[in-house]
Amino acid sequence: MIQVSIIGSGNVAQHLIIALQNAKTIGTEIELIQVFSRNKESLSHLLPLEKIVSEIANLKAVDLVIIAISDDAIASVSSQLPFDNKLVVHTSGSVAMDQLATKNRKGVFYPLQTFTKNKSIDFSLIPICLESENATDYEVLQFVAEKISNSIFAINSEQRKALHVAAVFVNNFVNHLYSIGNEICAENKISFDILKPLIQETAAKILTLAPLEAQTGPAKRNDLKTIHSHLNFIEDTNQKEIYKILTQSIQNNV
Amino acid sequence: MIQVSIIGSGNVAQHLIIALQNAKTIGTEIELIQVFSRNKESLSHLLPLEKIVSEIANLKAVDLVIIAISDDAIASVSSQLPFDNKLVVHTSGSVAMDQLATKNRKGVFYPLQTFTKNKSIDFSLIPICLESENATDYEVLQFVAEKISNSIFAINSEQRKALHVAAVFVNNFVNHLYSIGNEICAENKISFDILKPLIQETAAKILTLAPLEAQTGPAKRNDLKTIHSHLNFIEDTNQKEIYKILTQSIQNNV
Repeated sequence: MIQVSIIGSGNVAQHLIIALQNAKTIGTEIELIQVFSRNKESLSHLLPLEKIVSEIANLKAVDLVIIAISDDAIASVSSQLPFDNKLVVHTSGSVAMDQLATKNRKGVFYPLQTFTKNKSIDFSLIPICLESENATDYEVLQFVAEKISNSIFAINSEQRKALHVAAVFVNNFVNHLYSIGNEICAENKISFDILKPLIQETAAKILTLAPLEAQTGPAKRNDLKTIHSHLNFIEDTNQKEIYKILTQSIQNNV
Repeated sequence: MIQVSIIGSGNVAQHLIIALQNAKTIGTEIELIQVFSRNKESLSHLLPLEKIVSEIANLKAVDLVIIAISDDAIASVSSQLPFDNKLVVHTSGSVAMDQLATKNRKGVFYPLQTFTKNKSIDFSLIPICLESENATDYEVLQFVAEKISNSIFAINSEQRKALHVAAVFVNNFVNHLYSIGNEICAENKISFDILKPLIQETAAKILTLAPLEAQTGPAKRNDLKTIHSHLNFIEDTNQKEIYKILTQSIQNNV
């Protein structure tokens, strides 16, 4: 039996709580002991109140503590834990493992996904990136991760940084391009719904084709006439700059 | 009964041939009469050879001719058709309707999707953008479009241009960001598979949330520490420029 506690009440914490509780119903090898949240009410829809603690000092010494809070607070909270020599991990893509306080054994349990409050998600499909200081702790993390996901990867802190940068490109920046598409539609009284099947297919394509092979469009085929016509059409200076730099980048990669 | 012919043998033409042939099996209201391709062999897997013509002069006068060829050739091919006063449409997102030769009645039949050779696609989900010179012709286009798709939109040439620009952002540019994500993974010996669930969820989110509401990440929350750390990490000048301009653009839109 592995006893787990979670620190945090945000999107990642809540999705982890749900996933661990669902995992618990399958076997009894993992038990969610406590969750820390300054505001107990924020988790009362997920847990019985007696499992929620609002003082760090009231956290019990368990086998595994998962810190799922904002990056800036990880170091400080990990140093306030009222026990030592337990396995303490964070869930951040951009914080190095060694930012955790040294009094406990360190690790990382990073689920690489974009979580939305009130939108359920199939945790079994989410890749979980694991790191630890020693092999025994890695086995504990792997055991817990395998209970909630089918996709586990050993990723060190340097690789995790690269992965987080890559995730910014394929998630944050991609979503911003959706936003620009939405704006262009709105300005021209076109329903954004027209673009949704294209957006879905663009994402679906890279499941079977490498992105470089999937590339199409005026930049890829060096269709200067269409590129100039588009640049003439776009009035917004910012959109024009983005169009230029991404077109250039595609042309450099052909 | 509406008699239809298609000009072209590329991705769009082939997907249209398949969709129209499937539509035909449902009712007998549409008949695919001929397809023009310079190289008959390129379509022999889809059609009986007697339906394929390799000389424009051999095209019969039918109710509707769909020109699905590269943008540059549309005007010229439409002027070579051996009949007049028929409804002739093209399938391009970036060519204005009036580029078609005036001897026939003009229209546009633009399926907004990214087509990949040898990858089947459910045409019923593809938005088809229609335009015509007069209401009667619009009804013909609508009748044919509704046989193969559940998603039909009246879009004039100016709107279609906007839509094509928007499509470049949400398809071509998005795919290029996937490519950059792939590169960063490869350079750091990380499987690109780790990013695939994130990519799928990013696309799925905008089916229920406006892109602006779905935006997350360091730029959105003005997390300058992470942004600087990412910029330090990225060595490629081109990737760095793209990171900067898209971060700035997200920050301007918050």
